[in-house]
Amino acid sequence: MKIAYIGLGIMGKPAALNLLRAGYTVGVWARRVEATLPLVEAGATAYDTPAALAAAAEVVITNVADTADVEAVLLAENGVASGMARGGTVIDMSTIAPTKSREIAATLAQQGIDFLDAPVSGGEKGAIAGTLTFMVGGEQQVFARMQPLFAAMGETITYIGASGAGQVAKACNQIIIGATISGVAEAFRLAAANGVDLQQVRQALSGGFAASRVLEIHGQRMISGDYTPGFKAVLHKKDIGIALAEAAAAGMTLPSADIFMQRLQQLIDNEGGELDSAAVNKIVAQESL
Amino acid sequence: MKIAYIGLGIMGKPAALNLLRAGYTVGVWARRVEATLPLVEAGATAYDTPAALAAAAEVVITNVADTADVEAVLLAENGVASGMARGGTVIDMSTIAPTKSREIAATLAQQGIDFLDAPVSGGEKGAIAGTLTFMVGGEQQVFARMQPLFAAMGETITYIGASGAGQVAKACNQIIIGATISGVAEAFRLAAANGVDLQQVRQALSGGFAASRVLEIHGQRMISGDYTPGFKAVLHKKDIGIALAEAAAAGMTLPSADIFMQRLQQLIDNEGGELDSAAVNKIVAQESL
Repeated sequence: MKIAYIGLGIMGKPAALNLLRAGYTVGVWARRVEATLPLVEAGATAYDTPAALAAAAEVVITNVADTADVEAVLLAENGVASGMARGGTVIDMSTIAPTKSREIAATLAQQGIDFLDAPVSGGEKGAIAGTLTFMVGGEQQVFARMQPLFAAMGETITYIGASGAGQVAKACNQIIIGATISGVAEAFRLAAANGVDLQQVRQALSGGFAASRVLEIHGQRMISGDYTPGFKAVLHKKDIGIALAEAAAAGMTLPSADIFMQRLQQLIDNEGGELDSAAVNKIVAQESL
Repeated sequence: MKIAYIGLGIMGKPAALNLLRAGYTVGVWARRVEATLPLVEAGATAYDTPAALAAAAEVVITNVADTADVEAVLLAENGVASGMARGGTVIDMSTIAPTKSREIAATLAQQGIDFLDAPVSGGEKGAIAGTLTFMVGGEQQVFARMQPLFAAMGETITYIGASGAGQVAKACNQIIIGATISGVAEAFRLAAANGVDLQQVRQALSGGFAASRVLEIHGQRMISGDYTPGFKAVLHKKDIGIALAEAAAAGMTLPSADIFMQRLQQLIDNEGGELDSAAVNKIVAQESL
């Protein structure tokens, strides 16, 4: 099967390499030609435009920064949609707004192109190891057809539901992680103020109902003060922003997500957005009445 | 070793029975004599006052409702302190304010009585099965001496640090669980509003960084709508209240804990406090801008 991959960043490059390793024919395009070189070296073919790339492929995978980038590579002049044959499939691994994702799916459907929203979690490590978690929205038969492709890049692959459902699940993922980071940071602050050893607290609580991956991994970051990402604050902010905008549009309030957002913003104002989002712990540690 | 057990409620009764099963001599006292009957039937001896009970014991364990009750059974007229010999040990399994716990420890120390704060998590099930999680504060050598006693009632037994540290760890536990419940409920609300199946979301997210016992267990309660406790809202509110009061006294704000507290209060106002605290999901589902 001929695959086209667009978005050869920190996640996309290793994911595309895993497709090559799995034996797929892979074509690539990138705004910066240099980004395609490691893939070409590994056996991929570079194309001049998304349209040319898509014309030579049965499946196009996009893995770019945000909604605007997805729309640009798919729908702009010389975009994927202008080159792809009817019956093709587009898989978007980017994290974007669910409503926008559904709009894109509808636009492509008019050209006879199937679309799956398939945002991931698992980070750079998961992309390299081929152990990404995929949350997939779209038609179930399209998902079934693409299953081997997902399996080449990931490990936990869940069909969530109709178009946009993958993006909704990803938003849920980011809300829960954020709220849990907030809770752990507040708990650690109370413990520190009482002179209690944080590592003892982390270990004791990991055996009970407070146990979580966040307490384990982000909690360890807070204790060591090593906020090497992991997942950058600026990206977590982008994702929580999507969730809050969707909620507001539906007349809902998400106060826990909102508090985490404010803390992320404060962190980014203070230190930029390159630290792991667990670094909101630094903000929590300073909050006063 | 002769143990005295005070507080034969939903947690205390099975814990005291486990001490009997482990071969300890157990004395009991309860405000309501009826509460002692199942223990007496199993081989315990009932006493007329906490003082008389303590006079016959090397170790007194308290497991009562709140700070006032702990102070009453230990320090009031005919209380434990008035009967206990020097060199005795008091273990408080109740969840109370860390500052009060330290005060009680200091008062008892003046009489030559050791004191450990040893709040638990694990619920009625854990108490019956002897798998409670203990978070212990006090002198480490006293903890070491009492280790076999803890092992008869629990499974995960962690010495946290100096007097009060066990109560601090318990407060941390309740904050983290509350913040995570808030996050899961907000995520589920967003998913439901988008017509996305909550069970699919729960399962997909349980494989990644959003994984937690709360997503697994409280998330399942939210999906099924079965809020049989588990851990009652009114008790979670009591515990978060302790954390917030301690924080406020230290000039700190804990916004995520505070939001959870407001939601608990709303739940209790609407439906009483007997449901599992995961039922704050019902409140989250109604919040609007």
